[in-house]
Amino acid sequence: MTEQTFSRELASELATANRILVHHGVLDAFGHVSVRDALNSDHFLLARNMAPGLVTVDDIMAYDLDGNWLDASGRPSYLERFIHASIYKMYPSAKAVVHSHSPSIIPFGVTEVVFKPASHMASFLGAGAPIFEIRETGGPATDMLITDNKLGAALARTLADCPVTLMRGHGNTVVGDSLPEAVFRAVYTEVNARIVAQALVIGQGRVNFLNTAEAERITAANKTQIGRAWAVWKRDVEESR
Amino acid sequence: MTEQTFSRELASELATANRILVHHGVLDAFGHVSVRDALNSDHFLLARNMAPGLVTVDDIMAYDLDGNWLDASGRPSYLERFIHASIYKMYPSAKAVVHSHSPSIIPFGVTEVVFKPASHMASFLGAGAPIFEIRETGGPATDMLITDNKLGAALARTLADCPVTLMRGHGNTVVGDSLPEAVFRAVYTEVNARIVAQALVIGQGRVNFLNTAEAERITAANKTQIGRAWAVWKRDVEESR
Amino acid sequence: MTEQTFSRELASELATANRILVHHGVLDAFGHVSVRDALNSDHFLLARNMAPGLVTVDDIMAYDLDGNWLDASGRPSYLERFIHASIYKMYPSAKAVVHSHSPSIIPFGVTEVVFKPASHMASFLGAGAPIFEIRETGGPATDMLITDNKLGAALARTLADCPVTLMRGHGNTVVGDSLPEAVFRAVYTEVNARIVAQALVIGQGRVNFLNTAEAERITAANKTQIGRAWAVWKRDVEESR
Amino acid sequence: MTEQTFSRELASELATANRILVHHGVLDAFGHVSVRDALNSDHFLLARNMAPGLVTVDDIMAYDLDGNWLDASGRPSYLERFIHASIYKMYPSAKAVVHSHSPSIIPFGVTEVVFKPASHMASFLGAGAPIFEIRETGGPATDMLITDNKLGAALARTLADCPVTLMRGHGNTVVGDSLPEAVFRAVYTEVNARIVAQALVIGQGRVNFLNTAEAERITAANKTQIGRAWAVWKRDVEESR
Repeated sequence: MTEQTFSRELASELATANRILVHHGVLDAFGHVSVRDALNSDHFLLARNMAPGLVTVDDIMAYDLDGNWLDASGRPSYLERFIHASIYKMYPSAKAVVHSHSPSIIPFGVTEVVFKPASHMASFLGAGAPIFEIRETGGPATDMLITDNKLGAALARTLADCPVTLMRGHGNTVVGDSLPEAVFRAVYTEVNARIVAQALVIGQGRVNFLNTAEAERITAANKTQIGRAWAVWKRDVEESR
Repeated sequence: MTEQTFSRELASELATANRILVHHGVLDAFGHVSVRDALNSDHFLLARNMAPGLVTVDDIMAYDLDGNWLDASGRPSYLERFIHASIYKMYPSAKAVVHSHSPSIIPFGVTEVVFKPASHMASFLGAGAPIFEIRETGGPATDMLITDNKLGAALARTLADCPVTLMRGHGNTVVGDSLPEAVFRAVYTEVNARIVAQALVIGQGRVNFLNTAEAERITAANKTQIGRAWAVWKRDVEESR
Repeated sequence: MTEQTFSRELASELATANRILVHHGVLDAFGHVSVRDALNSDHFLLARNMAPGLVTVDDIMAYDLDGNWLDASGRPSYLERFIHASIYKMYPSAKAVVHSHSPSIIPFGVTEVVFKPASHMASFLGAGAPIFEIRETGGPATDMLITDNKLGAALARTLADCPVTLMRGHGNTVVGDSLPEAVFRAVYTEVNARIVAQALVIGQGRVNFLNTAEAERITAANKTQIGRAWAVWKRDVEESR
Repeated sequence: MTEQTFSRELASELATANRILVHHGVLDAFGHVSVRDALNSDHFLLARNMAPGLVTVDDIMAYDLDGNWLDASGRPSYLERFIHASIYKMYPSAKAVVHSHSPSIIPFGVTEVVFKPASHMASFLGAGAPIFEIRETGGPATDMLITDNKLGAALARTLADCPVTLMRGHGNTVVGDSLPEAVFRAVYTEVNARIVAQALVIGQGRVNFLNTAEAERITAANKTQIGRAWAVWKRDVEESR
């Protein structure tokens, strides 16, 4: 059993991320957010099995990239910690991961409509969001959950170069280069889902999405603006405590 | 008149369930939630006739399985207490019942579209949700309410093996193996209704629902996770008092 | 100038009704609610021209049934007080009136779809809700507002035996036999609009509405339950002060 | 570097406008609102680069009509301050500008449906809302942002005589004769978008919009009522602090 050596500051930021995502309706009583350990890139931080709205800094545990917890407390872990482990293992650039059941996004995983950015705030979806079909790896009778590394690796492969994958009948998983970026992307994927759904309906299926060049350029420009969102979202959840 | 012997702790949990369901928009000024008495399985607990958002532990009364109240106070009862009585009488396994006018669900009771789980959180809807048509038992000119045991029994029979029945032009009734499970199911039936409606619209009627095996397996897996939701929902309503 | 003789208690209830309707999103910064004076049926009470969310008991003024204010203070009146005056004049049974821009209802005034009760809570809409077209009385170039008794009388006639009229491109007006009933109806007309819109969309235009007998019977039954809603709604706005 | 000479009172009103627009969901962590300096019509006031929900009077800076800041503090500016500068330069009557990503409006910028007033509160949209297509000025590979005066001037020209322009894949910009009017218009453009979307869907594309004469007359009448909205909206954000 490895001693936990992660910084309390990073764990605190992760607790804040939990509350921000609840505040924005991305997480409800379920779903989870993790961050790669800044002191050891072979570890990631994730809360123990609990509702994200209740997570505090003391609930954060470290895991290795196979999803094993590095903690002697015996506290239960999320069944789907393998989502996080597999992504950090496959993509060294991945620094934070949000897995949620963000409600407006689910319809796009159970239909065959295009999910691209109708708003520049969701430009990171420029290449679309691939749908993960668990039946391809787990067969037709799974419990829908990513409960081992084989399913986790299949999910991670589906992401390929995209920061978001839609999980059919389940939810979505979002990757970021930093914790604020993953949170930002999770929030604006939900916002984009509402906008695209409305546009599809009023436009009878025809929506003028951002083109690839536009999406790439604004994604780069937005990188410098994510801190603006993080600042106010952090204040909002601190006030509501 | 039987003396009330139920535990104050269970009555307190039931008061909490009332507030949770209001907080999630499942109950508004109307609807009600009950729990089978843990000390006497021929009784169930239900608030006196009042808005669920105002219910406290002192408003809880006991009823027998014919819908008679076991209380000398003379406080008025819900007109539709027969919903609860009939279900507890017909299904010994039923431990808690929620009757609500949860708004997103009503459209599925007045149309002929399929209502199945598009999200694994609503997997308990795997066999669909049968529609209760009061005209079949009460004729074409009822007041829509379940105001006697004959109508209650007809509603209970409609449930059959399903935990949820849609009541045409009225609302829905949800059954659980425990109070937290009934609350969980009531909340996620509403969430699923929003998701399915959106999916139907953007998918032009074609939605990739969970299959039967998936629904059954995740329902079993979720049984262990309901406490996670109850914990945070209880905290939320205690904070908002 | 007649001295104001209305009871402070009724004025206080009217101030509460203002806040309840704001709390439920029926009124925003605009719209108004009135009540017939219990001491003089030729008078009605209405706030001075101000946002309903700010109304207190001291802002209530009396008006006669021509829309003249009975108050020497010189405080400005709502431009559309004639909505209230004309309805009280034409219908002696009318005891309270809500005029709002309740947002989900407006689409039903600018389209030709049926607006009937899909939920028993809106059973008072059993005969539908007639659309008031101001062009028929005011011509094609009005300012859309009911700013005199001629337009008010035309609006009142449109109501006929219905408690709700939809005002094309503007909002709606709701009548009740009491202040709580008018508030109840205003709230559930908005709720019904959301439900019917969703049902129309998923049901591709086919919705199983309550029939006339059902609507009439449940309307009578609900009369006894309105106090339940009023109690919790009043508590909600008192807590949020 | 010009010394800042604007009134602290106007800066305070602008901080209030920021919070009102956040409270109504028009601004989120992004977007901005400005006001022309009452003391020098060649200047306008705008917050430094920050989330609008955090803006206080001390965050307000002055800019000239080319978008240069008149402030020695070195605090960063919004990338898109040229939206404001260009509009104030082209339209001497423009006194306040809101640029937002108000979510219900975006679908109307990425589809070809008509966006006109279905509600008299949005009558200022009587001539429609022209869509600004950045590709016409900036080519097919911009970052979508109005980051210089050339793009700003193109956006301003698109407005022509309309107070609102929809920015494809981005958001919208609203102009008012006063700060309260710009805020009022921003709020009711969002409300109208929700109403028109719903009406289009239930009405299968046919919506009975206000005609031109109606829109013009009610716009004039509403001018006198904007203060009513400002009063309650200001109170709401002061209470929520």
